[in-house]
Amino acid sequence: MSKPHLLLLSSSKVHGYEFLEYAASDIKNFLNKSGVSTVLFVPYAAVDHDAYLKKVTPVFNKWGYQVEGIHNNNPIEAVKKAEAIFVGGGNTFLLLKTLYDKQVVNLIRERVLKGGIPYIGSSAGTNVAAPTIHNTNDMPIVYPQSFSALNLIPFNINPHYLDPDSTSKHKGETREERILQYHELPPEYPVHHVLGLREGCTLHVDGDVAILKGIANARLFLRGKPPQEIPLESNLSHLLTKNICVEQELQILQ
Amino acid sequence: MSKPHLLLLSSSKVHGYEFLEYAASDIKNFLNKSGVSTVLFVPYAAVDHDAYLKKVTPVFNKWGYQVEGIHNNNPIEAVKKAEAIFVGGGNTFLLLKTLYDKQVVNLIRERVLKGGIPYIGSSAGTNVAAPTIHNTNDMPIVYPQSFSALNLIPFNINPHYLDPDSTSKHKGETREERILQYHELPPEYPVHHVLGLREGCTLHVDGDVAILKGIANARLFLRGKPPQEIPLESNLSHLLTKNICVEQELQILQ
Ligand SMILES: [Ca+2]
Ligand SMILES: [Ca+2]
Repeated sequence: MSKPHLLLLSSSKVHGYEFLEYAASDIKNFLNKSGVSTVLFVPYAAVDHDAYLKKVTPVFNKWGYQVEGIHNNNPIEAVKKAEAIFVGGGNTFLLLKTLYDKQVVNLIRERVLKGGIPYIGSSAGTNVAAPTIHNTNDMPIVYPQSFSALNLIPFNINPHYLDPDSTSKHKGETREERILQYHELPPEYPVHHVLGLREGCTLHVDGDVAILKGIANARLFLRGKPPQEIPLESNLSHLLTKNICVEQELQILQ
Repeated sequence: MSKPHLLLLSSSKVHGYEFLEYAASDIKNFLNKSGVSTVLFVPYAAVDHDAYLKKVTPVFNKWGYQVEGIHNNNPIEAVKKAEAIFVGGGNTFLLLKTLYDKQVVNLIRERVLKGGIPYIGSSAGTNVAAPTIHNTNDMPIVYPQSFSALNLIPFNINPHYLDPDSTSKHKGETREERILQYHELPPEYPVHHVLGLREGCTLHVDGDVAILKGIANARLFLRGKPPQEIPLESNLSHLLTKNICVEQELQILQ
């Protein structure tokens, strides 16, 4: 098994930056390392695939890459031939449902984990890189056949992680309360550790090494432990090893 | 078919009030009209059912009602005998999954729509009174067998509705954007109108009459129309009639 190359962004938009701009050098370095010339873009998190492709293409073109939309081809053939995959943000449920409907969940997983092609995810595209989408912020506007996702890493992600606002009068659960609720589920529900990526966080996975980069700290929720602040440049490789999905993962890949 | 009696609260907690206190007279009037002495409490939206029952019981006792926990009995028998049902808030996915697991979804629906027993919902308990939970704010921490819910009313609810914060630098979708995304889904996805209940809103349904009460205005999202502000004391009875679920509803109840 080749080692996975992942670049997982909390979001495409960050205050004060153009679309994807805050991560420009990260994305370019990441793709250049693998000698990529064309990126397969997956716009399934949005309703209008063509409009989304039109938004993403000039950004990657400016950086010197061609972009193909998975929806303009046979999706299975497109994934089989892809040099690199970028899965954009939008609605995580719509994204995961469409990945299942197009029958590319296992195939993307195989291309990334066995084929070693680089995977970039942003927001919903980062959610689906995790074992499950249990920690998305999105509304469940469509019903996917499962909450299990690409399982490229052994822990879940909460993108757009937001700190509690102590001045707010709103009584809905904070992001932290929602993640802690998840970790309080009884043992019959398998749960995962959760990395909360604030907007501007980027998680770099290169084989068995994971590093937090970008322009914002992350917050880590290990089940049964108090949440921890994760500063930029932290090494998070330990999160890639021991996990409750190991057996399941081995079964799938055998 | 008897006419439904529903009291749907956006939330149990409102800034400046004790638990359920802002709705105290609404709840008492609502239960007294039907001569209720004991309320069946459904704590399935929380992990710890006993702790939740302990929190709710003294509040209802103070108002002169006995409370029984559905989890302390055979749930099916408990629903069959219930004089009134209160479904509390917490996590909507956990609530709906447990309602399905305990096989009480159709039974509660029947008791409310045919038997005419009063139904009080708060937050997640209000979400599941709708046709689907597509517009919950909660994290999908468990996987229910369907997003279809009790379908006691023909439109969806977004509880804890929150206005966009124009000063925020956060780039995650606003509540309004999320609901509009839902309404932009292509025609193969059946979608519902959405009533956004701000904290402190209560929706009173008495047969074919629906009135907005409480201490906060609501916001109505009719598919294909601009969102509308709904002031207190508005008559929303028109929402109870025409809807995309009518045929489905007639089939189920025949
Ligand atoms: Ca999103
Ligand atoms: Ca909730």
